[in-house]
Amino acid sequence: MFFASDNWAGASEKVAEALAAAGAGPAPAYGNDEVTAAATARFSEIFERDVAVYFVATGTAANALALASATSAGGIVFCHSEAHIAVDECCAPEFFSGGGKLLSIAGPAGRMTPEGFAEALAKVPDGDVHHGRVAAVSLSQASEAGTVYDTADVVRIADLAHGRGMTVHMDGARFANALVATGQTPAEMTWKAGVDVLSFGATKNGCWCAEAVVFFDPERGRDFPYFRKRAGHLFSKSRFIAAQFLAYFDDDHWLANARHANAMAARLAEGIVAAPAARLAWRPQSNEVFAILTDGALRCLSDAGIDVHQWPSHAAPGPDGPSAGEKLVRLVTSFRTTEDEVSRFVSEVSLISA
Amino acid sequence: MFFASDNWAGASEKVAEALAAAGAGPAPAYGNDEVTAAATARFSEIFERDVAVYFVATGTAANALALASATSAGGIVFCHSEAHIAVDECCAPEFFSGGGKLLSIAGPAGRMTPEGFAEALAKVPDGDVHHGRVAAVSLSQASEAGTVYDTADVVRIADLAHGRGMTVHMDGARFANALVATGQTPAEMTWKAGVDVLSFGATKNGCWCAEAVVFFDPERGRDFPYFRKRAGHLFSKSRFIAAQFLAYFDDDHWLANARHANAMAARLAEGIVAAPAARLAWRPQSNEVFAILTDGALRCLSDAGIDVHQWPSHAAPGPDGPSAGEKLVRLVTSFRTTEDEVSRFVSEVSLISA
Amino acid sequence: MFFASDNWAGASEKVAEALAAAGAGPAPAYGNDEVTAAATARFSEIFERDVAVYFVATGTAANALALASATSAGGIVFCHSEAHIAVDECCAPEFFSGGGKLLSIAGPAGRMTPEGFAEALAKVPDGDVHHGRVAAVSLSQASEAGTVYDTADVVRIADLAHGRGMTVHMDGARFANALVATGQTPAEMTWKAGVDVLSFGATKNGCWCAEAVVFFDPERGRDFPYFRKRAGHLFSKSRFIAAQFLAYFDDDHWLANARHANAMAARLAEGIVAAPAARLAWRPQSNEVFAILTDGALRCLSDAGIDVHQWPSHAAPGPDGPSAGEKLVRLVTSFRTTEDEVSRFVSEVSLISA
Amino acid sequence: MFFASDNWAGASEKVAEALAAAGAGPAPAYGNDEVTAAATARFSEIFERDVAVYFVATGTAANALALASATSAGGIVFCHSEAHIAVDECCAPEFFSGGGKLLSIAGPAGRMTPEGFAEALAKVPDGDVHHGRVAAVSLSQASEAGTVYDTADVVRIADLAHGRGMTVHMDGARFANALVATGQTPAEMTWKAGVDVLSFGATKNGCWCAEAVVFFDPERGRDFPYFRKRAGHLFSKSRFIAAQFLAYFDDDHWLANARHANAMAARLAEGIVAAPAARLAWRPQSNEVFAILTDGALRCLSDAGIDVHQWPSHAAPGPDGPSAGEKLVRLVTSFRTTEDEVSRFVSEVSLISA
Repeated sequence: MFFASDNWAGASEKVAEALAAAGAGPAPAYGNDEVTAAATARFSEIFERDVAVYFVATGTAANALALASATSAGGIVFCHSEAHIAVDECCAPEFFSGGGKLLSIAGPAGRMTPEGFAEALAKVPDGDVHHGRVAAVSLSQASEAGTVYDTADVVRIADLAHGRGMTVHMDGARFANALVATGQTPAEMTWKAGVDVLSFGATKNGCWCAEAVVFFDPERGRDFPYFRKRAGHLFSKSRFIAAQFLAYFDDDHWLANARHANAMAARLAEGIVAAPAARLAWRPQSNEVFAILTDGALRCLSDAGIDVHQWPSHAAPGPDGPSAGEKLVRLVTSFRTTEDEVSRFVSEVSLISA
Repeated sequence: MFFASDNWAGASEKVAEALAAAGAGPAPAYGNDEVTAAATARFSEIFERDVAVYFVATGTAANALALASATSAGGIVFCHSEAHIAVDECCAPEFFSGGGKLLSIAGPAGRMTPEGFAEALAKVPDGDVHHGRVAAVSLSQASEAGTVYDTADVVRIADLAHGRGMTVHMDGARFANALVATGQTPAEMTWKAGVDVLSFGATKNGCWCAEAVVFFDPERGRDFPYFRKRAGHLFSKSRFIAAQFLAYFDDDHWLANARHANAMAARLAEGIVAAPAARLAWRPQSNEVFAILTDGALRCLSDAGIDVHQWPSHAAPGPDGPSAGEKLVRLVTSFRTTEDEVSRFVSEVSLISA
Repeated sequence: MFFASDNWAGASEKVAEALAAAGAGPAPAYGNDEVTAAATARFSEIFERDVAVYFVATGTAANALALASATSAGGIVFCHSEAHIAVDECCAPEFFSGGGKLLSIAGPAGRMTPEGFAEALAKVPDGDVHHGRVAAVSLSQASEAGTVYDTADVVRIADLAHGRGMTVHMDGARFANALVATGQTPAEMTWKAGVDVLSFGATKNGCWCAEAVVFFDPERGRDFPYFRKRAGHLFSKSRFIAAQFLAYFDDDHWLANARHANAMAARLAEGIVAAPAARLAWRPQSNEVFAILTDGALRCLSDAGIDVHQWPSHAAPGPDGPSAGEKLVRLVTSFRTTEDEVSRFVSEVSLISA
Repeated sequence: MFFASDNWAGASEKVAEALAAAGAGPAPAYGNDEVTAAATARFSEIFERDVAVYFVATGTAANALALASATSAGGIVFCHSEAHIAVDECCAPEFFSGGGKLLSIAGPAGRMTPEGFAEALAKVPDGDVHHGRVAAVSLSQASEAGTVYDTADVVRIADLAHGRGMTVHMDGARFANALVATGQTPAEMTWKAGVDVLSFGATKNGCWCAEAVVFFDPERGRDFPYFRKRAGHLFSKSRFIAAQFLAYFDDDHWLANARHANAMAARLAEGIVAAPAARLAWRPQSNEVFAILTDGALRCLSDAGIDVHQWPSHAAPGPDGPSAGEKLVRLVTSFRTTEDEVSRFVSEVSLISA
């Protein structure tokens, strides 16, 4: 049983088999092959417009390069204070943007509010060279806290950003999980809401390694090939990424995987709500559950062979956060999570007294 | 038939099957898994000492990050004027090193000479802040020209570099091809000759995507995890690279692949030597053949459905290079090249009159 | 009358005359001259130990280069959320450090507390490559808010930083003003309290352009000449900076200038405390006074020909900050500020009814 | 007597006095003052069009920032192999351009030829992401070798560059010396010949510290304020640079200084031509003389108390360069060089037998 991360799962059988089948015969290198062309075409179908798609090696690379291509000298990127780009990418966004600044915005359960964004924007007026200049806003959908932005909020944030000439970036490392949670189309969740560039992640949801940067206006990505190559992220045998994406999209495999992961998370959440020694930090909406457990409950689970991942308590500030004798924990489900695993966890946690 | 590049081949069956088998079950992310540990251990066995191994996505990333980790502010890296890092990496080495300079050294058939290196070194005396400071020398083994450095020359170059406190880097994108060409051991070709850090490439020789940076003194790579993560080159599902490496090394698969590719190149070379309308630009030693063909010969081959890759003529300067009415071409063989392909090419080219 | 900034003052007569006298005759370039040697020696006397001193063009350059030389890949610099490096340097620290991150810490009146620093430090544990790694802490002395750190707090912050292997940087753009405010020696306020590297500013306090980076352990600055030259901050005619510093230090000119500026600020503060339509945002300790005025008061002052510089209200958060109908303003005094100017301001503001 | 460098001279009396007079009274900071406005207006008059002018601290900064503002990811800057940006700026151009590459072009006496440039350009075809992309060409006028480009050659090089969408940069560290050598107007030597951006240096020719980046199309410099501030090159008391420029331009002071320096160099050259133990490496055109002396001559001069600056012999390659027993030396004259100094040198060197 493991709920440590969706990165622990390998590739799904479907993806693994497709990759194994894709290797025979020669094909032009560096993305000039038919498999890459087919995968790229699928992106345009899924997003209902002609998009420019660039594969890169990791989600960190997708985020950092997407933001770098949107940032000029002295550029500032706004993001949530717990965003992956802010706390988990070893300064990659700052590095690739030539020292761009990430300006953190707090907000409940992993999301900035339009009001919080407006307030932060006001601190960086146009035309003051000392402050630098606004460049982009980055929204994680689903967020690092397992929540999902209302599209109405994305629209409001994007409007504010576009009013200042900024780029709207979406970190979609868990895009599929957000998509099935909202019931929207990929187009509705992105460019129709004002998103300009998307980090589209498939690794956590069934692939070995399949990450792409998607520009909804291809012209905006005109320089991206140089950013990518300069970063060592242009694969020579590009079709090994493309083949994974084709399998991922085929027969709605990606949506099925995400629905399963979300359903498992919902079941975990139900069990936690009912458990005397545990409570939810906030309501989960995708495949991550943040819960507050007593220290005693953690010990009991550990004795039962169940290790859960503690999370920094500052991610759940305020009166509803963990108090003394409690800990914040993160449980992540994936396409591989089984009902048995969930049932066993729920069963164990429900037995622990408060 | 294709001799355009060894990047056109997919993965070998052995590697593809191993990868397909590696996906089941969970494993810790970011390289903390058993498959990664096993692959890393294999590197230490192969190089006959404890080495530090870091997987990255591409050969460009391996080179640029290895050099960046060896370069301080104002640092200069010496390399051959036709080196991959100098002409084919879109300034990645300069970018990752914070603006380090590549100082090009000419030399016949893709290799610098110890004398040429000594002369270039003398132009950058120690302690002159205006010039910057010497940081590293990079040698491609096999070279971009399909030749191989004599280890005696590597030793002399490394001695000169170490005498100035520099790092010796080897670009081993075609390391296996050089290895079987020289008949040396991996240790003899690297750290025993003075190499400090190696870009070890397996992608061109049978893998989908398997590149590693190898530090022969692990302490020298102490900071590398930060360089790699900041570059977006730390894979979450690291075992998908590790599994390829394990298959690559298993049962001397890598050496067999390289021997085959080199043998096919040697046969191509023999055919070219015998052909009236073609000649070798220089003697090939690994899996790349550079030949000079008449324009008429190129047309005849094209009519026969054989397209070969023209190469910039400045790579073969001097009286032996292409004259008017001639072109320099590059033919690359790989583990996938068949004897039939080679025979057909040789047969066609031998029929063309001068 | 102007209280907009201490940057508005030109050079003091003493400094200007010394500079005019320094130009005759040849001298070696790039700092190898006797005037530079003499100025450097004065720094060592003033700080009571052998220090390494490097002139640069601006305070922003001093800060950014000092921090860059202390930051490796993925490095994080902690500072107050209103620090000059955080909000007024157009991402120069991030740029020069290869994308280092500034991690902001809030704190009353422009200063972080040791407790606030400890809490922020705890969020970046050692050995987690995703977070990056702690590199330095930067303290502004005097702060951007016109306050001064207690040396006891500097000692506690420095101890925390050194315990994590970090560098302690002091932004001394207004070092002289802080010095005379505390009554300490330069040594006590810096290296005796744990400061490793100081941006020593003289421009605001009487020079045209005289900024230096001071390493209290010269070995720590060993690489700095390359950082400086690579940044275009190595002056060819270095003595024109050195001559200013010599005049600045001569006969305690710098201390006299700072004492005057601080005294003028104290007098302004007294007048504001006594005025019905104004109050202090906090008690000033050096040459900057932050006050809260009613909108009516601002209009009256403007009618009297006195324009004051409004400051973003978020710098004074909480119940004591400006409420509706009030504004936060900044008044800066300098060596050039006259008693008449101060008296006139105090007189005008005291007449305005609440 | 010193011919080591024009950087050894201090400021001219005229410049020093103007600076001393400029300090009284307050003025807005960061270039928003009247002195800066007046100096900027003078640039537009001198160049006969509205130009955008940005002061920076050094010639290295001017070059590196001008080139950085013209370079995108993977950008390549072409320059002469002995250009200051290539060998004397500690990788500043590479650093500020985010790792742009300097591609060196050899050429006699410090100048590239249009043919040499065309050949180098051809090696970097458009649309090949591996090679990077052409960004700018940089011409030094006067060159590091004391020669001057024919404007016809500048026009041809600029046409080639513009045909590839590149920026044409001129390094004018010794602009005045080139100007009086050619007898052209500033406009003819720059924008009328196709130059887009100029590093305008006044430091070597009479100022303490006065360097500017001049954009002939102000729109091209739109982003430059951010590049400058991010680099720590925005002076707070900008008028101290502006006052020097005003004096420099006043009453053709700059032209008089340059004419004097060039005349002194011409006289040195005449003496060297007549001396049995010395010869010119090439004909000087501005204020730098490169000569080849026998080792014996160098010893005789040294015995007479005259030390000259040896120059790397590779700057004068070929049969006319220094042979065994000879050395290449550089003699630089300035506005401060006296006829007596020149006469004494000529007298001493003429006495030495071959």
